[in-house]
Amino acid sequence: MGHLGNHMLNAADFHSTDRGFGMRYLMTIQRSWVLSRLAIEMQELPQQYTRFHVETWVESAMRYFTNRNFRVVGDDGKVYGYGRSIWAMIDTESRQPTDIFSIHDGAISQWVEKDKECPIEKGSRVKMGDGAALVRTIDTYYSDVDINGHINSVKYIEHVLDLWDMAWYQTHQVKRFEIAYVAEAHAGDRLAFYREQTAENEYCVRIVRSDGTECCRSKVTFCQL
Amino acid sequence: MGHLGNHMLNAADFHSTDRGFGMRYLMTIQRSWVLSRLAIEMQELPQQYTRFHVETWVESAMRYFTNRNFRVVGDDGKVYGYGRSIWAMIDTESRQPTDIFSIHDGAISQWVEKDKECPIEKGSRVKMGDGAALVRTIDTYYSDVDINGHINSVKYIEHVLDLWDMAWYQTHQVKRFEIAYVAEAHAGDRLAFYREQTAENEYCVRIVRSDGTECCRSKVTFCQL
Repeated sequence: MGHLGNHMLNAADFHSTDRGFGMRYLMTIQRSWVLSRLAIEMQELPQQYTRFHVETWVESAMRYFTNRNFRVVGDDGKVYGYGRSIWAMIDTESRQPTDIFSIHDGAISQWVEKDKECPIEKGSRVKMGDGAALVRTIDTYYSDVDINGHINSVKYIEHVLDLWDMAWYQTHQVKRFEIAYVAEAHAGDRLAFYREQTAENEYCVRIVRSDGTECCRSKVTFCQL
Repeated sequence: MGHLGNHMLNAADFHSTDRGFGMRYLMTIQRSWVLSRLAIEMQELPQQYTRFHVETWVESAMRYFTNRNFRVVGDDGKVYGYGRSIWAMIDTESRQPTDIFSIHDGAISQWVEKDKECPIEKGSRVKMGDGAALVRTIDTYYSDVDINGHINSVKYIEHVLDLWDMAWYQTHQVKRFEIAYVAEAHAGDRLAFYREQTAENEYCVRIVRSDGTECCRSKVTFCQL
């Protein structure tokens, strides 16, 4: 699931770079895309050695947020699953949100594909009560961080899925994985994971930095194998 | 470095599969390749967005071991670095070494490329004294394991490199990474890391399971940035 998430984030970068609003250009004007939410829902995972493609397109663009979708499809046209993501654009100095339409005179609008179907639920706010139990605390290291020194988006996915043991994965598969990125963590930060079961095969996880700040909130839905 | 190691292991699998002695075929006859050693030495790491290729070839094949090399090269022909690996073939039931030449009548011999240059040192036995200090103990989880339930070869690389902090990596780059796989560890195993400095910018690391068995031995050589 983490590997798949990585492919999606790479696809997003290639797609936006080819259209003139990728990270590489944004860096030159002191802007950056920031991933706000990611949801991945798989009907089936590709088997080992299966050749698959990750498609991506912009579903909509507003002033401060854009929705980007993904489709995972085999060489034979078989659809394995979909993804949804929400991105903000920030000023890398002030770390404040900036107007997405200010890039090349609102050029992103011409890439919006409203009619391409993404038949999975939009992410909703992950609601958690006070019932979540502290289930693990981890230290973060060099291989957890991205080029900016922040904990890598995909590493959070791996750490969340690591909360279940091998025996669980022998009888369960991730059906849908959803994560909202709230605040950044840095290498060396100690992260606490609070987990709460919210329905049958559905769990919510809150990740909290040692200073008490919530970094991420995630919802994992499993299906029985 | 871990990501690069992953590309090398994938290249090895594609290369051997295309020539009839890959994992996919071996599984049908109760055999498997087992990685025994891996060494990666980079003159330079490809920059972000650089397109590069991983080449691989068989340098030699003996009854119980084969040497496979790698070259990392850019689209423009620029050589970034090389890799060396040693593999054994085992019977997946008995876990004992088997004769590599028994596969398709010694067919691997016809793929040996003796004259292709791999100008990095062969891996030597990593010599460690009793001076190695316990520097970290970690638990292993779902995302650490491969399809057989063993700790993934590349994850060991990441865990070893995680022994140095971000400040170190701001002034040091991995020049050469070497690892010998001695015994398998499984998800849930607790791994202890013992580290010893053996020369300037050279460190040896021993990874030990909680039952006291040594799993890996690694040598990392850094260069100053």
